[in-house]
Amino acid sequence: MKSPICEMLGIEFPLLAFSHCRDVVAAVSRAGGFGVLGATIHTPETIEQELKWIDDHVDGKPYGLDVLIPENISTAGEKDVTWQSLETRIGPEHRDFTRDLLKKYNIDFKPVPVPANQPQPFDAQCALEVLEVSFSHPIRLIANALGVPPKAMIDMGRKHGVPVAALVGAKEHAIRQVAAGVDIIVAQGTEAGGHCGEVSTMVLVPEVIKAIKPIREVPVLAAGGIMTGRQMAACMAMGAAGAWTGSVWLATVESETSETFREKMIAASSRDAVRSKGRTGKPARQLRSVWTDAWDRGPDSPGALPMPLQSIISRDAFIAIDRAAAAGSAQARDLVSYFVGQGVGLIDSVKSARAVVQEFKQDFAEAVEHLDALVAT
Amino acid sequence: MKSPICEMLGIEFPLLAFSHCRDVVAAVSRAGGFGVLGATIHTPETIEQELKWIDDHVDGKPYGLDVLIPENISTAGEKDVTWQSLETRIGPEHRDFTRDLLKKYNIDFKPVPVPANQPQPFDAQCALEVLEVSFSHPIRLIANALGVPPKAMIDMGRKHGVPVAALVGAKEHAIRQVAAGVDIIVAQGTEAGGHCGEVSTMVLVPEVIKAIKPIREVPVLAAGGIMTGRQMAACMAMGAAGAWTGSVWLATVESETSETFREKMIAASSRDAVRSKGRTGKPARQLRSVWTDAWDRGPDSPGALPMPLQSIISRDAFIAIDRAAAAGSAQARDLVSYFVGQGVGLIDSVKSARAVVQEFKQDFAEAVEHLDALVAT
Repeated sequence: MKSPICEMLGIEFPLLAFSHCRDVVAAVSRAGGFGVLGATIHTPETIEQELKWIDDHVDGKPYGLDVLIPENISTAGEKDVTWQSLETRIGPEHRDFTRDLLKKYNIDFKPVPVPANQPQPFDAQCALEVLEVSFSHPIRLIANALGVPPKAMIDMGRKHGVPVAALVGAKEHAIRQVAAGVDIIVAQGTEAGGHCGEVSTMVLVPEVIKAIKPIREVPVLAAGGIMTGRQMAACMAMGAAGAWTGSVWLATVESETSETFREKMIAASSRDAVRSKGRTGKPARQLRSVWTDAWDRGPDSPGALPMPLQSIISRDAFIAIDRAAAAGSAQARDLVSYFVGQGVGLIDSVKSARAVVQEFKQDFAEAVEHLDALVAT
Repeated sequence: MKSPICEMLGIEFPLLAFSHCRDVVAAVSRAGGFGVLGATIHTPETIEQELKWIDDHVDGKPYGLDVLIPENISTAGEKDVTWQSLETRIGPEHRDFTRDLLKKYNIDFKPVPVPANQPQPFDAQCALEVLEVSFSHPIRLIANALGVPPKAMIDMGRKHGVPVAALVGAKEHAIRQVAAGVDIIVAQGTEAGGHCGEVSTMVLVPEVIKAIKPIREVPVLAAGGIMTGRQMAACMAMGAAGAWTGSVWLATVESETSETFREKMIAASSRDAVRSKGRTGKPARQLRSVWTDAWDRGPDSPGALPMPLQSIISRDAFIAIDRAAAAGSAQARDLVSYFVGQGVGLIDSVKSARAVVQEFKQDFAEAVEHLDALVAT
């Protein structure tokens, strides 16, 4: 496929795959897509190892990096906030609620210690340092979620000749992102896994394309709910430059997801992917479980804490939950959850990342043939 | 276009247009689409007049009828429930809340009298009688929203050789509808105006197609957010047999909408279309206004009453609101609302229904050409 986005990224098929797992990133890029590593949990040291590994396994194919620098966060403006210092801000009400919830399911909850200098979750300075390190690797894209990237990030992209992408959930955000100098817009519908807005992919994609057209020529990738090449063709029929995908890679053999979560994904329908503040403090779509129900509708719920505090609580809780579930606890299984979009309703098996890319290509071609056949008659 | 749905309905372009306005229905069918008259508010007497008018203005082109028979309603199982008898079930708390809200905006709220034998809103018996009358007109489709149609409706369709369609918002509903004998499924995403579920069109359409395929060959129309031929092509790329549309016709010169509401639609972005129980007692997408805010998040909100009681309250209130707004009250304007989907964000002018159909055809062709050009290079 010859298109501006394909030229920009050095690919032939504009299927971008977001994953926290380096194996998925390398496999997708090798298969002709474009892997994007989610670097949120990394430090400059750990990202160096990950990218080295990808370089060794990607056969010279292009890939990118995604960071999460929230434009709005409760610690905004504070300097040198560490994970440890934030733990003291979590009051007994929220700790007790979490402990009691896990106890009811026979899981022992205790905060898991972190190194003294561990940065806060979603720390902007740390993300910029991660990016700085990454430019010594052949990355072809940097992306940011949750608001306009800081100027330093856009400047870094310019300096290194690497395009900067930004996720948006509303037309108004897209306009601000384009004004800030972003090179690629990812219009992500409410059906997407992880942090998301309220507008659906079907509406958001044309609305964003229409809104930014008078400002500047910026390619728009469609995101949210895209699990097949037919849906990718659908989005490109609406004018999207390509597809940005996430959930579909969770059900690959390469992915980081647990056996329990994979089974739950296969059993789930689209309505089981709920938008909840229970994991990070901001609305994010994830698999409905006892955890999301308790925070969202439990009669005793203290309500989620703001980002980044809720992430600290849920990180500790899910370490315990996942461990218990892996050890075979059926009760812990009821709590297991992870970020996933409504597209989970289309997952019916676990495949290799390469097979998923091949299926996307084939389904895309079939969708175009199907439309051609319709108009020919 | 040659396809099973086109043969079934006697049309060439599978664009179905739901409208409460006979002018829109006739204009769309004349232009090569398929108009579907929303008959919810009609009695056997008034529907007879409407269909006679359509027959006189549709140039022999096919059209259909849509009723709203809720599978779940608070008056289920009761016989001979009249509008008047229900009014006594609305307590002072809800009446006072409504009166106070309108008073704050300088609108005088008083219940508008109805004839003694007026059936309750969404009365199933009345809907079946409306359908019975309609078969003396050349209708080519009957459709039901809000659950599995009663057996009597499906039997009527069979007897008269008219296909029966049903709207669904979840895969599970589609499976039940197909088992009940429905001929066409309308998979309506959460972005749609009016009563809607939580799953987006992008996910729901392929999920429903996949779920019902092993049961029986039933065409699936896509609904929710579709305002252009490009989106229609997108849905058909995913395997939909055609598009079921609603909101786009509200911004036509023929439609029943007020000048005030049209202006509000043009000014709105997709996020202004909210899912609220404030109008009918069931979640329905409508333009956000002081009305929806008051019921959904007002600190003194008594919460919406169940269907059909909330419809009685809101009907009386909106008669007063719309009258005051039409008379030029800027305060009343803040309350004006009506059912509309997230696609409202794509409305930027009012056109003739014929022009909208033409644009759909042109955009559809352009979308197919665009995809062809992409894969050719």
